[in-house]
Amino acid sequence: MTALHADISEFYARQMRLLDEGQADRWADTFTDDAVFGQDGKPPREGREAIAAGLRGAVARQSASGITRRHWLGMLAADPQPDGDVLTRYYALVVETPAGGGASLHLSTDCTDRLVRLGGGWKVAHRHVTHDGR
Amino acid sequence: MTALHADISEFYARQMRLLDEGQADRWADTFTDDAVFGQDGKPPREGREAIAAGLRGAVARQSASGITRRHWLGMLAADPQPDGDVLTRYYALVVETPAGGGASLHLSTDCTDRLVRLGGGWKVAHRHVTHDGR
Amino acid sequence: MTALHADISEFYARQMRLLDEGQADRWADTFTDDAVFGQDGKPPREGREAIAAGLRGAVARQSASGITRRHWLGMLAADPQPDGDVLTRYYALVVETPAGGGASLHLSTDCTDRLVRLGGGWKVAHRHVTHDGR
Repeated sequence: MTALHADISEFYARQMRLLDEGQADRWADTFTDDAVFGQDGKPPREGREAIAAGLRGAVARQSASGITRRHWLGMLAADPQPDGDVLTRYYALVVETPAGGGASLHLSTDCTDRLVRLGGGWKVAHRHVTHDGR
Repeated sequence: MTALHADISEFYARQMRLLDEGQADRWADTFTDDAVFGQDGKPPREGREAIAAGLRGAVARQSASGITRRHWLGMLAADPQPDGDVLTRYYALVVETPAGGGASLHLSTDCTDRLVRLGGGWKVAHRHVTHDGR
Repeated sequence: MTALHADISEFYARQMRLLDEGQADRWADTFTDDAVFGQDGKPPREGREAIAAGLRGAVARQSASGITRRHWLGMLAADPQPDGDVLTRYYALVVETPAGGGASLHLSTDCTDRLVRLGGGWKVAHRHVTHDGR
């Protein structure tokens, strides 16, 4: 299980960097074809194409804003399932820095994923993000 | 030592989630019977029951406040001792989000634990938390 | 690669604690003799002695300010190279707490290192720190 912890930490570091760099297609490619991505207060996005489309819109708004956004994941616990999938729980923070300004915490969340092994790596089959303070 | 690092990271993720979810008894069960928990500016809590009692009070105040609190541990260094115990040093942040409000840093700390292997997992035998800014 | 992830996480925890504790010489000793340390908006420091000298100045200013500063590294991705070096990418936050005050985010950065194995441990041969918001 300790190898799993490090392996998944590494997966998340690479996945969230794609998000922060606005690489919508490569980000969406870290999800399964039929992945479901749910966030509090928004209808879930179903399927990789919907997930990519959602990010493309966010990337455009983000780019126009001049704000650098970084996703920090931590406090990871990974539970392997009998079918080979892995359920994870973790916290995530969003840190924002406007052009010429200082860094601040934008959001604190509690997240759960179902990860599947595909093609020698991990894909997210299901993600739910709970926003603190809602 | 690398397996130890991941193993202890996973232990802390599960332990701190119990704290953040207000599960006082399950949290206290991650300490040894005779554990000592010290924080700057407070008398140390001695024994699992005193640790649980302290958390029960905090849970009640926390619940009444409507604030979501998350403990983030990071920058972990683990040193195995000749007797099999492990001394750890790490930083911890407390992130708070009030109902309907934004996330903010509440506290930055520097921590040290003595961990012992018991019953196939880890227990904290001694913890000291130093609060930055005091 | 998972052992590498945990191993390097542990290296960074120890390295950054030296920085936060103002141990300029021991911090500089985590770099190679001819290391290059670049940060946005500053000329790069070349060689371990220049890196130590830069930190000594910062330590004096920091100590006079009464502010506790903690470097948090996270979201680590490590890529072993054919020559045995390892390229890493990670995010880093600087958290500050003034004497008698509350914790706040001071800086969010994106970093890349070239690490080499020397004397049974890691040394930084090249580091570049990009400050968000510039």
